Amino acid sequence: MSGSIFGKNIKISTWGESHGEALGVVIDGFPAGMELNEEDVQSLLDRRKPGTSAATTSRKEDDKVKILSGIFEGKTTGTPISMMVMNTSQRSGDYSEIASYYRPGHADYPFDMKYGFRDYRGGGRSSGRETIGRVAAGALCKKLLKQMGIDVCAYTRSIGNVEIDYSKFDQAAITSTPSAMPDRDADVKAMELIANKRAECDSVGGVIECKITGVPAGIGEPVFDKLDALLSQAVMSIGAVKAIEIGDGIKVSEYFGSDNNDEFEYSNGEVIKKTNHSGGILGGMSDGSVITLRAHVKPTPSIAKTQKTINKNGENIEINIKGRHDPVVVPRAVVVVESMCAITLLDLMMSNMYSKAENIVSFYQK
Amino acid sequence: MSGSIFGKNIKISTWGESHGEALGVVIDGFPAGMELNEEDVQSLLDRRKPGTSAATTSRKEDDKVKILSGIFEGKTTGTPISMMVMNTSQRSGDYSEIASYYRPGHADYPFDMKYGFRDYRGGGRSSGRETIGRVAAGALCKKLLKQMGIDVCAYTRSIGNVEIDYSKFDQAAITSTPSAMPDRDADVKAMELIANKRAECDSVGGVIECKITGVPAGIGEPVFDKLDALLSQAVMSIGAVKAIEIGDGIKVSEYFGSDNNDEFEYSNGEVIKKTNHSGGILGGMSDGSVITLRAHVKPTPSIAKTQKTINKNGENIEINIKGRHDPVVVPRAVVVVESMCAITLLDLMMSNMYSKAENIVSFYQK
Amino acid sequence: MSGSIFGKNIKISTWGESHGEALGVVIDGFPAGMELNEEDVQSLLDRRKPGTSAATTSRKEDDKVKILSGIFEGKTTGTPISMMVMNTSQRSGDYSEIASYYRPGHADYPFDMKYGFRDYRGGGRSSGRETIGRVAAGALCKKLLKQMGIDVCAYTRSIGNVEIDYSKFDQAAITSTPSAMPDRDADVKAMELIANKRAECDSVGGVIECKITGVPAGIGEPVFDKLDALLSQAVMSIGAVKAIEIGDGIKVSEYFGSDNNDEFEYSNGEVIKKTNHSGGILGGMSDGSVITLRAHVKPTPSIAKTQKTINKNGENIEINIKGRHDPVVVPRAVVVVESMCAITLLDLMMSNMYSKAENIVSFYQK
Amino acid sequence: MSGSIFGKNIKISTWGESHGEALGVVIDGFPAGMELNEEDVQSLLDRRKPGTSAATTSRKEDDKVKILSGIFEGKTTGTPISMMVMNTSQRSGDYSEIASYYRPGHADYPFDMKYGFRDYRGGGRSSGRETIGRVAAGALCKKLLKQMGIDVCAYTRSIGNVEIDYSKFDQAAITSTPSAMPDRDADVKAMELIANKRAECDSVGGVIECKITGVPAGIGEPVFDKLDALLSQAVMSIGAVKAIEIGDGIKVSEYFGSDNNDEFEYSNGEVIKKTNHSGGILGGMSDGSVITLRAHVKPTPSIAKTQKTINKNGENIEINIKGRHDPVVVPRAVVVVESMCAITLLDLMMSNMYSKAENIVSFYQK
Repeated sequence: MSGSIFGKNIKISTWGESHGEALGVVIDGFPAGMELNEEDVQSLLDRRKPGTSAATTSRKEDDKVKILSGIFEGKTTGTPISMMVMNTSQRSGDYSEIASYYRPGHADYPFDMKYGFRDYRGGGRSSGRETIGRVAAGALCKKLLKQMGIDVCAYTRSIGNVEIDYSKFDQAAITSTPSAMPDRDADVKAMELIANKRAECDSVGGVIECKITGVPAGIGEPVFDKLDALLSQAVMSIGAVKAIEIGDGIKVSEYFGSDNNDEFEYSNGEVIKKTNHSGGILGGMSDGSVITLRAHVKPTPSIAKTQKTINKNGENIEINIKGRHDPVVVPRAVVVVESMCAITLLDLMMSNMYSKAENIVSFYQK
Repeated sequence: MSGSIFGKNIKISTWGESHGEALGVVIDGFPAGMELNEEDVQSLLDRRKPGTSAATTSRKEDDKVKILSGIFEGKTTGTPISMMVMNTSQRSGDYSEIASYYRPGHADYPFDMKYGFRDYRGGGRSSGRETIGRVAAGALCKKLLKQMGIDVCAYTRSIGNVEIDYSKFDQAAITSTPSAMPDRDADVKAMELIANKRAECDSVGGVIECKITGVPAGIGEPVFDKLDALLSQAVMSIGAVKAIEIGDGIKVSEYFGSDNNDEFEYSNGEVIKKTNHSGGILGGMSDGSVITLRAHVKPTPSIAKTQKTINKNGENIEINIKGRHDPVVVPRAVVVVESMCAITLLDLMMSNMYSKAENIVSFYQK
Repeated sequence: MSGSIFGKNIKISTWGESHGEALGVVIDGFPAGMELNEEDVQSLLDRRKPGTSAATTSRKEDDKVKILSGIFEGKTTGTPISMMVMNTSQRSGDYSEIASYYRPGHADYPFDMKYGFRDYRGGGRSSGRETIGRVAAGALCKKLLKQMGIDVCAYTRSIGNVEIDYSKFDQAAITSTPSAMPDRDADVKAMELIANKRAECDSVGGVIECKITGVPAGIGEPVFDKLDALLSQAVMSIGAVKAIEIGDGIKVSEYFGSDNNDEFEYSNGEVIKKTNHSGGILGGMSDGSVITLRAHVKPTPSIAKTQKTINKNGENIEINIKGRHDPVVVPRAVVVVESMCAITLLDLMMSNMYSKAENIVSFYQK
Repeated sequence: MSGSIFGKNIKISTWGESHGEALGVVIDGFPAGMELNEEDVQSLLDRRKPGTSAATTSRKEDDKVKILSGIFEGKTTGTPISMMVMNTSQRSGDYSEIASYYRPGHADYPFDMKYGFRDYRGGGRSSGRETIGRVAAGALCKKLLKQMGIDVCAYTRSIGNVEIDYSKFDQAAITSTPSAMPDRDADVKAMELIANKRAECDSVGGVIECKITGVPAGIGEPVFDKLDALLSQAVMSIGAVKAIEIGDGIKVSEYFGSDNNDEFEYSNGEVIKKTNHSGGILGGMSDGSVITLRAHVKPTPSIAKTQKTINKNGENIEINIKGRHDPVVVPRAVVVVESMCAITLLDLMMSNMYSKAENIVSFYQK
């Protein structure tokens, strides 16, 4: 089945493997007339680039994006936007050994069971490099959302047991700290933890939080295409994510109704909620408050520690995975979460335009 | 946008409001030749029926299903299966007052913002009764999965702070206790908690766990249509669910790689994993282990306690919601989770049939 | 695969067999706030009702529609609209013999090859009664299009070799003549031909033409979802249709460019085309002129004449099909063509609302 | 809306404009394990290449394809296959004038109405070069179909009033004559007609016929996703196609039932039909006979003859279109029709694999 296309109104079709010629995305259905240049996309791609700190692999990936179609005289044309990044720094030799066995925590085994074989170089299609196309598409959606006053902002909330302190929240730190934490003290501690675990040939997990501000009430569709349901698919589809929380998330299962309900109030003619346990979503539709979700990310499965596993000859073996791996994927995945949320939201805002018959009629009477 | 259709190969299209004439589902794409009668569906619907215990509303809902199409001589025909349940016990009078205000924790406000008005009777389309169609469709999928040795089993893992003890796991208790817990002692405590909270005009949340056994490795599609991503959409689309965990879920964010990786092993010629932190899913595909997920369910928002909110006249008001409401939705939602998981899995197993070119070629050479 | 759902933004899901309990449709994604009652739908359904003239079967089918969901206080709510017609006049006894053999020109043989068996009563799902759901859905779309000044009008252009004379075009005749021809003289001749062929135990074909006026330029999507491409799928999906023409259709293959191009002209500030060979569609998008298409409909395959065929026992046999069959399906199919065109057009008009980025931005700035 | 993605199980996403950097396609859902190299694709692309005869433009387009992903060790991997052709010979200067006016018979006017502006260079996205992606995708589908004994073969049936004589049918001529006609005498006459019309600054249309042999009975889905309905969308979505016929097509509207029905017969244990008016499709499913369709193609709208039209300043003007244009598009479109038919058929054959419940069960019991 087709599994590499996402979205209903805007459809993104990503392609490419870790060690293939290139990776990219085709965005179909993006509206016409938005100014766009390669720098708009590159600036987001640079946020997922490795090699910039001790938190990431020492592989150097330049990841320079090229826009191949869908732009004319500096604006989107309404037709498919094709973007590509060439693979330049891949050393396939690093990976040849892993062709014969199944790495714990990786997709190797199910891949072989499904397709009969796999592109084992750097994880092939299940590599984190697959997210390049998501981020390139997310850059466009973020830009258009911004023109409507909507901001999608993700950051690292915790790495291992190191959590940010919201009283020290510093927006600028998100893009300037190696951990992508908005708290510089937490960042220091997190980087220490990462360094220690790297030294132990081990890896760490963490939590990414995403807040979306400025969303009008009513976005999302009742029943299956709820805003939170589609955000969950979007974010859970990012490799290494194992849990999703909306608003207070897992805490609600221990709440009582009187704790959990957010009361509505008119304040200066505006509808507000003093609390936001719901994370800005009620009945699958935005309620006008800040949309909040958290993604729990597992530790990088590629670790240098000795592990037991099996090979294709039916043998139980021990392995030590070589290569240049991130000891934590969280910081680089922050912009991926942001991108997937932006794509999902913009998509639902499009179809919301014809929720009311009167909106259609008045649009065509113009 | 169309938000009431779910699935890619099997598409279920649910319809109906809490206080309309009827509710139902059309299932398009279900394969031909499976034996089916109304009792197969009714037995699952009865598991979500209220009025059977102190855990549920005192409303009596018979919810007798009628199959209107797609069956001939006791078998599915391959064409759409339409199933319907008449609404018989609804008292719209109970709800007339709520037309004028927005209940905290409910979809009332975003519904009005989206559509300009709403069917306010019993929550209309956002009522829990909407799930009747899901369960009816789930019954068919569960039946076909069973023929392949696959069992989808959900149960209540906790209500409020009362959690089951796995050492007392009793499968039969799931369908015989009012809490749908597989631990009869925990059930007693949970029912006490519910009774207390109902007396306090309050409500409670809880956790539903679902385990799927017998799934071959390789089900699910890399990238966006990952098995866990689609299960997340499916389960998060159930009203009141606010978090989803796969396998060890939120715990993985504090794990190290050496904790979290499940080692593969050959045991009597079979590939096994001694641990299952991954919840049976790697890289978005089943890995041959038990698939495990948990849904965190918020407490029922309809509570009799006094709450502050707003009305349509721009006034801040206080309300006491009347009517017959469940003090907890968890037990009735268990079979809904089971249904959504079954639909999602079967759907992905269909398209997995043509993952390999050789499977297509050999199918048509028969 | 799911084959009974049509549309992208509005999705219609039809269900039901000729001799099942009922037939119906669920419409998902229809916008909120349009006034609707059962009479709006019934009036279109009555146009496809048989038993009203010598052109149709003598079967009496009341086909009273019931709206089961999606309407509140006389208006569409934005949630799924379920409509149903009970089967009342079916006599299954008429069809029992045909269970054993494959009727020429019918779907019997491929149905058995695909599914292993079939509901042979009255054609089951491949019966013309399947179109009830299409017409019910079409009624809603036509009503909303009318509010935008768009009229979708189909009629019989020819039956056998009897063609209408456009100089005698009489709109009122479409719904008052048994042939659905807009030319009363042609109608008389067509009815004679039909009577003769019925007497000879034979049947006739014909052509349905559909004109859509008032469509703004730019509706339809370049490449695969062209307006004419989706109209072709929509109309070709009606049983018995074997060819589709847009504008001058088959004639264009013998044209030269200088004949076929329609010149643009400003006339009183409006853009007009003096000719309309293109049928109102250029590059897959509406060009502001009248949209014109023709569907060529084969003669009813159920004829009383002796025919050779095969049975399931591997024997070559001769058959005489009994039962009450239409000698021509064209007049009853007119409203089906109209319905499918209305659904297709409205669907594309919805997504056209966000073709321009500025439209999205200004919508949400309101 | 997303309009550049086609297919349900195999999804092709084409991108690129006539004068952009490149054009290409991403194929998502193609099964794993089929051998594929660039030459497999190039050989089909070469069939749509211009500059090879007097029937085509004198522009030289090398159109060398590069496969960027989805292939490993010479085989498809089951993940997206990205293919690209660089634009090398485009001279944008040729087109600058047409920015200001709307060419008759072209998509210029609706494009501007839809999006507010357009990439006017060589037609931008509505250029015939858009079909490069279709043909590249078609090459893969044709190859896999061939392994199942299915052949998709299109050819020019007529150009202007010059039609092939079936008694002279010569398969080899299809790829060796400039007209793509399977009749060398007709080819000579057609080329004369084309030369004459080119000299008169005019252009001609024609008919493409496609025959598909070896298709088992039962492919296609009842109701909306009928094989003929999806083939119609597929072929009508090719620019310049204005009519589609299945089997006897437009003739059926003048047939009587006794003419049109194809009788079934057992012949040496095989089910055969002595006639094939149905074109191999009954009730929207293949009936085991040769599938036959015809596409009527309009004459190239770009002609050098003086034409009246309008410009963006509100003026009625006269134009003479310059540039290197094909005097007929039929020969180059033959392989595009073939490709679209192959994609559509393979897609439906995939989902047909789970039409029967027993097929699913037995697949997973293996």
